Amino acid sequence: MICIDKRSKTPYYQQIYRQLLEQILSGRLSAGHLLPGSRTLAASLGVGRNTVDNAYSQLATEGYLLPVPGRGYQVQALPELLLDRTGPSSVPNQPPAEVSPVLYDLFYGSLSNRDFPFSQWKKEMNAVLAQESQRGINDYPGHKGDLLLREQLTDYLFETRGILCSPDQIVITAGLQGSLDILCKLFLPDGGLHVFENPSYNKARFIFQCHNLSLAYLTLDHAGAMPSSLPKDQKVTSIYLTPSHQFPLGMVMPIQRRYEFLNWALEHDAYLIEDDYDSDYSYYGSPIPALQSVDTNGRVIYLGSFSKSLSPSMRMAYLILPPALAHRYNTELAAYNGMVPWLMQRTLAQFIANGHYRRLVRRLRTKFKRTHDLLLKELRQMSPEIRIVSQGHALKFLLAFPDSMPREWLIARALEQSVRVYSPERFWQPPEDCPPTLIQIGFTAMEPEDIPLCIQRLKAAWFPEQ
Amino acid sequence: MICIDKRSKTPYYQQIYRQLLEQILSGRLSAGHLLPGSRTLAASLGVGRNTVDNAYSQLATEGYLLPVPGRGYQVQALPELLLDRTGPSSVPNQPPAEVSPVLYDLFYGSLSNRDFPFSQWKKEMNAVLAQESQRGINDYPGHKGDLLLREQLTDYLFETRGILCSPDQIVITAGLQGSLDILCKLFLPDGGLHVFENPSYNKARFIFQCHNLSLAYLTLDHAGAMPSSLPKDQKVTSIYLTPSHQFPLGMVMPIQRRYEFLNWALEHDAYLIEDDYDSDYSYYGSPIPALQSVDTNGRVIYLGSFSKSLSPSMRMAYLILPPALAHRYNTELAAYNGMVPWLMQRTLAQFIANGHYRRLVRRLRTKFKRTHDLLLKELRQMSPEIRIVSQGHALKFLLAFPDSMPREWLIARALEQSVRVYSPERFWQPPEDCPPTLIQIGFTAMEPEDIPLCIQRLKAAWFPEQ
Repeated sequence: MICIDKRSKTPYYQQIYRQLLEQILSGRLSAGHLLPGSRTLAASLGVGRNTVDNAYSQLATEGYLLPVPGRGYQVQALPELLLDRTGPSSVPNQPPAEVSPVLYDLFYGSLSNRDFPFSQWKKEMNAVLAQESQRGINDYPGHKGDLLLREQLTDYLFETRGILCSPDQIVITAGLQGSLDILCKLFLPDGGLHVFENPSYNKARFIFQCHNLSLAYLTLDHAGAMPSSLPKDQKVTSIYLTPSHQFPLGMVMPIQRRYEFLNWALEHDAYLIEDDYDSDYSYYGSPIPALQSVDTNGRVIYLGSFSKSLSPSMRMAYLILPPALAHRYNTELAAYNGMVPWLMQRTLAQFIANGHYRRLVRRLRTKFKRTHDLLLKELRQMSPEIRIVSQGHALKFLLAFPDSMPREWLIARALEQSVRVYSPERFWQPPEDCPPTLIQIGFTAMEPEDIPLCIQRLKAAWFPEQ
Repeated sequence: MICIDKRSKTPYYQQIYRQLLEQILSGRLSAGHLLPGSRTLAASLGVGRNTVDNAYSQLATEGYLLPVPGRGYQVQALPELLLDRTGPSSVPNQPPAEVSPVLYDLFYGSLSNRDFPFSQWKKEMNAVLAQESQRGINDYPGHKGDLLLREQLTDYLFETRGILCSPDQIVITAGLQGSLDILCKLFLPDGGLHVFENPSYNKARFIFQCHNLSLAYLTLDHAGAMPSSLPKDQKVTSIYLTPSHQFPLGMVMPIQRRYEFLNWALEHDAYLIEDDYDSDYSYYGSPIPALQSVDTNGRVIYLGSFSKSLSPSMRMAYLILPPALAHRYNTELAAYNGMVPWLMQRTLAQFIANGHYRRLVRRLRTKFKRTHDLLLKELRQMSPEIRIVSQGHALKFLLAFPDSMPREWLIARALEQSVRVYSPERFWQPPEDCPPTLIQIGFTAMEPEDIPLCIQRLKAAWFPEQ
């Protein structure tokens, strides 16, 4: 903060100059920092703009500041000797530059900008903002979220996933990790083990680790997680499952095994956490009812999200708690504020109520199925040596290659052809257990018409001679 | 989920009827649950609407469903004997009904709807949504938040609070508790004590307790938290301070004491957490520079929020980490997704960049000062027996009454006059230490012109004879 002493004999521009110089020399204004515009600073100090301009240009003359056309002045880097700071001088901001620009990024999780429902979202949001008398806009949202949205979700989930719950059991959260933050806070006093599939979603395990909870892992076979691999001697508090499509391998858990887990949970007083992350995307046959929908004993906690069916940038998800846990949430976590902006919640409620959401999901499902099928066909044609591991998975593929083609090579060769493919290592525990020729490609950000060209490049990268 | 077996000889309406009945009897459809509209259910089952209507009306005839005009059918409450469920049958939804309607709610934290900048917010949000090529709308936001917003904040905080930081040190969070969730995850591996003022904001302490961190408390005197009351024998990891206006008592920490805490933190390798929750509201004299602005050793973590200067419903706040901690955040919490919708962040960035935010803060400051001064004058006139404890506090008052007027009586009497005032007990640790005649009144949701009538009612409640 710059202070002007108006009774001092030192001219104002000198006062500003000296204070800025001191801050640059002490390292508190670090290299690259853009100073506020002279008009802005002048207004906040109550001096003329020329006064600030004088101070700035003096510092620029002496080499402390660099004029950046159109943006003002930036603090110059100083030699180490002049600086007397303790911490690291700055935090790396940008990832290192790429060798070649990426044309096709097969990242899992992003959607194409073309698929965001700009006009309907704008319309519903403006309609919410037009009701200026609505109390929600300047209050703390309720800690479970907007009631209208929870009511809309209740109906939608009954229709599409067979889920039976009352809006009281739903908590609107800021994404999957927001849901898990809440669960971990509920579980912390209980101790016990939290069991994950292996492989599983690393960013989900991470939240449990952040709360110092103890983790254990389930073995998988062709039908998904094996109940026989559940820990025998220790209290299990929760079991995290992805029954609809195992993450990341894609298999569907058969009904018999679902009941085995349900019965085990009942017998051992454990909770099943059902992460139904891509529930809207079953391309073949009817969707399998959610585990929650066959649970009659309040053992299933259901996790849903709007990241794949509206936008990952919206950070909206939800948690359906069995009645006993919902009761604990109300009492033990009453001091936990909701974290989702009311405006987004209410807009989404109207977006669902007015039919836009159902239409959007139908449109995305049709598009993703088209991309999925096309990609599958092209991959099969590319080479018989590629094994498609995660067939049945709705929004990405895991591909296995011959031993002679290790992952690092596959990724580097693809990048030379301006296509980015990914390593799924982080899903395995430990990551070294991930098969060494496995790679992951997501396709939700791709347009179907781009697939042939993208595949042509991948073929040039991996099978140039065929 | 209801399944129609199209090959069965049982008529569809009977299949629907039986499955719903089974779900009601098992308690999975609980009392009060609103069934989906018959048109909706019919479409999702692929049957005619009449078929569903027949099933519903049969159940209504038998008393399982209650027709609610305009909303459809609701599940009736059943006698306990018919139900075979394990958990509590439902979760209380609504607080118990009020005795009398509240005309003036002196809740601390809400703002008046009239103060939300509807038109400018709408304009900036629509401008962001008009740029359909912007990648942000369908990607995961960066885990530190939108860079444009962090750049705008850097300038704004330098101007108004003397804060020097680079955008790399800022993390955009979903409210104060979102900031603390992140800090606790960083602190968890370090062990040690986390020291709070007593009294202090209970919802801040709560997040530390949720992470099983160990808490200790500072004693306060007329100048705020006393450095002499810091724990002597145990490692202290963080000290949570409200130096600008002690929360909830309102005193400003003098510069000498600020330096005492800074030096102590440096010597003991502890962090000071500066919660600058109402920094934009200093009515008299210049604002005191933030503790962060006089820290040259990277010991201060700064917490700011938009709840009091834009809207509490927006759930946007930020965290400024010293460089060393920012570096740890980047590495240790890389798997932590941002929790704030990109659309809200980018809109806020434009809202600040285009000058709306500075104007809004000026307008709110003028209004709140007017309400503050008026309320102060009226309270002084009401009775000489009222002691205004938290004078200097920007957005609320703590009032102390004679011993003959205990808090419960004050609250109940005010409510009889349709005014809700609050107990500040929860800020004390233990709550019993809160002086028994202390009450809290917030005024940010009030219009100045309502003050005289509200005070008149409070006088009738508390001093009817004067």
